[in-house]
Amino acid sequence: MSSVHTASICTIGDEILIGQIVDTNSSAITRELGALGIRTSRMISIGDDHDTIVSELCNELKYNNIVITTGGLGPTKDDITKQALADLFGSKGWHIHEGQLAKVHEILHHRGIDVLEVNRNQALVPDGCEVIVNKRGTAPIMVFRFEEERFGHKAVLYSLPGVPFEALNALPDIVDDVKKHFALNDISHRTIMTYGIAESALSKLIENWEDALPEDMHLAYLPNTITGVRLRLSVYGGDRTKHEAALKSQIDALRDIAGEYIYAYSDTSLQATIGELLRNQGWTLSCAESCTGGLISELIVSVPGSSDYYLGSVTSYANSVKQQVLGVPEEIIVSHGAVSSECVRRMAEGVRRLTGSDFAVATSGIAGPTGGSEEKPVGLVWIGIASPRGSFTRSFVYKNDRKRNMERFAATALNLLRLEILENTKRQCI
Amino acid sequence: MSSVHTASICTIGDEILIGQIVDTNSSAITRELGALGIRTSRMISIGDDHDTIVSELCNELKYNNIVITTGGLGPTKDDITKQALADLFGSKGWHIHEGQLAKVHEILHHRGIDVLEVNRNQALVPDGCEVIVNKRGTAPIMVFRFEEERFGHKAVLYSLPGVPFEALNALPDIVDDVKKHFALNDISHRTIMTYGIAESALSKLIENWEDALPEDMHLAYLPNTITGVRLRLSVYGGDRTKHEAALKSQIDALRDIAGEYIYAYSDTSLQATIGELLRNQGWTLSCAESCTGGLISELIVSVPGSSDYYLGSVTSYANSVKQQVLGVPEEIIVSHGAVSSECVRRMAEGVRRLTGSDFAVATSGIAGPTGGSEEKPVGLVWIGIASPRGSFTRSFVYKNDRKRNMERFAATALNLLRLEILENTKRQCI
Repeated sequence: MSSVHTASICTIGDEILIGQIVDTNSSAITRELGALGIRTSRMISIGDDHDTIVSELCNELKYNNIVITTGGLGPTKDDITKQALADLFGSKGWHIHEGQLAKVHEILHHRGIDVLEVNRNQALVPDGCEVIVNKRGTAPIMVFRFEEERFGHKAVLYSLPGVPFEALNALPDIVDDVKKHFALNDISHRTIMTYGIAESALSKLIENWEDALPEDMHLAYLPNTITGVRLRLSVYGGDRTKHEAALKSQIDALRDIAGEYIYAYSDTSLQATIGELLRNQGWTLSCAESCTGGLISELIVSVPGSSDYYLGSVTSYANSVKQQVLGVPEEIIVSHGAVSSECVRRMAEGVRRLTGSDFAVATSGIAGPTGGSEEKPVGLVWIGIASPRGSFTRSFVYKNDRKRNMERFAATALNLLRLEILENTKRQCI
Repeated sequence: MSSVHTASICTIGDEILIGQIVDTNSSAITRELGALGIRTSRMISIGDDHDTIVSELCNELKYNNIVITTGGLGPTKDDITKQALADLFGSKGWHIHEGQLAKVHEILHHRGIDVLEVNRNQALVPDGCEVIVNKRGTAPIMVFRFEEERFGHKAVLYSLPGVPFEALNALPDIVDDVKKHFALNDISHRTIMTYGIAESALSKLIENWEDALPEDMHLAYLPNTITGVRLRLSVYGGDRTKHEAALKSQIDALRDIAGEYIYAYSDTSLQATIGELLRNQGWTLSCAESCTGGLISELIVSVPGSSDYYLGSVTSYANSVKQQVLGVPEEIIVSHGAVSSECVRRMAEGVRRLTGSDFAVATSGIAGPTGGSEEKPVGLVWIGIASPRGSFTRSFVYKNDRKRNMERFAATALNLLRLEILENTKRQCI
């Protein structure tokens, strides 16, 4: 029989309180905890102050089984946080953790820096804490297990470094430790990626299906401008061997209702999905961008290995580049304008011809904040697709600020491109 | 005589606690408060639960003069937060705020949606609170002023919507209200933008200058991969008319020490600075990108009005595009490789010729995570600049993950471009 556990996530450091950096660690940590079925009750951010750290963490431990801190562990300031943790835990002394010390030497050697006393001290930890070696940085990951009588319940504090890539890298170890030390309900997840439907509309579309989910299943919506609405279906407790079958049958039912919006059944992105489709067929891609200014290209290139299928792009911001590089006839721009069906079709065909790619996607629109007209409002985008079976265009209107409009334009273009690649794949197979 | 005020910033909503969205509001709010000389003591995130909201906010008001909440006010769930605020404040009833109701009608009409009861209720507010009309959304901004006896000090709670662009849009009104109702120390700021020097090295370089700053002056470091390290010099208290002169004399001294790294004396970016330089001279720009994949182009286009000087770019991800579109000779790629001084020089010259621009910047490098060699490691980038006075190249090595490497590559290229534009401007004037 397992019990309900709650967590608190605390960032330590003035840099967050004064707005120097945005805390993205807490969000990543709570998603991992959620995947274990552990609810985060609070997140707090506090400054680099010994007494504040002790009293706030003490308070969090009173109300939660799991407290995860990030930050406050840099080489120049770890004294305050580490001392506060030692005092909170009641450590009697300090010792060097040899595993972390070796890592400190390795990292600094790699950077060509001599190991000074201040660096050695990074490996110093309070007696009684357990250490998980930080493989990506010099500050150790510390685990403090409190006796049950201290807070009236089993409680653990994990201290992680603040640098996001060090903190995120430590998460699998934290997850393993939590699984080992807490009696958790068994839980399984499946991620479903959708595009082309707003969260509210999707929720309406699948309302009956969602309402009829078994009691031990839970659905979470995770919307994102660029990747679309990600759904996470989780099943808790019971017999784990039955989870897979239960999830599968629900997802099959979901496919019947919302299949046209689903582009993947794993945690991925439109650009990575497109990459896989192209790589499987040995096809290549290029883009011609105007209003998106390079964003589509950047998204495609953000996928490691994209050089296998991506040839490149032309950002034709000026009409002269549309004409001279992409070969859009001047009379098209004069009679229809640069933001037109005719123009994006020629842009897509032009870049496909120029690079010799199998597929091409083009955008031309008005991202704002100014520049629109009655007929062509701010937020209007024309998208053109050129493929082995011909070319076509479509238009959309979004009502956001410049940055968000550009993101919606780019994601919508990627989704149209994905559908066209699928269509070509199907026809080839028939 | 003014006293020290502290603030607490609270986000309300399960979507942050489960990691659906990252809270960026708190960071923006605390920067505004910091500019007023108000210290943020804590940030917390709590869920959509009536009793939690009441008890947590009560606690924050006990220890802080100013509490700013964001979130918890959507049309489907504002009941909980609003009811909690009403209970906390001790409101006896509710009323419709006519100004906000008019805004609800206007916004929904614009979206072509009928106003239902649930929408009308967005304009419902607890008696006794003051309302600032939310110009960008349907949920009102509520101001609760507590009697001094309630918490033993003057205390105000501002309730803002959670949608970032609505919350940020309300900030100037909140700042005005805080200025009006609290006796704040006079404060003036100046922002100095630097690039090409790490925060730690900059701090070392200007150490003596910083240590010798007058007691009423404070320096904050705000580092960013793309814009570089932003410095904010603030002067508190005293005679406001003297602030300008005091700031000017310190900034003049700073220019003598670190001038080579400073690119602006106002809050801006490399790409906006480049845009101004180009516009002033009537010059134009194009790019050729390989490893940065479109990011440089996207940054340039992110500046409104960039079509005045930006012609466009070629992302030559494949070598065939480098050769056929940009005219890089095949033998250069064969003998030197695509990541080479010779190649980026030809890329920059090629796109300059192709578009007819005055300036061109090109990148070719290895963003990682794989693909490097002993001689050309992951993190290596070659940057080429072509300008009216000729072309040149430089190389850099960064040791970050793929995304961060691409950002550093792009920002470094923009900075080299900026320096070259300045050089051309100078020579033209002589």
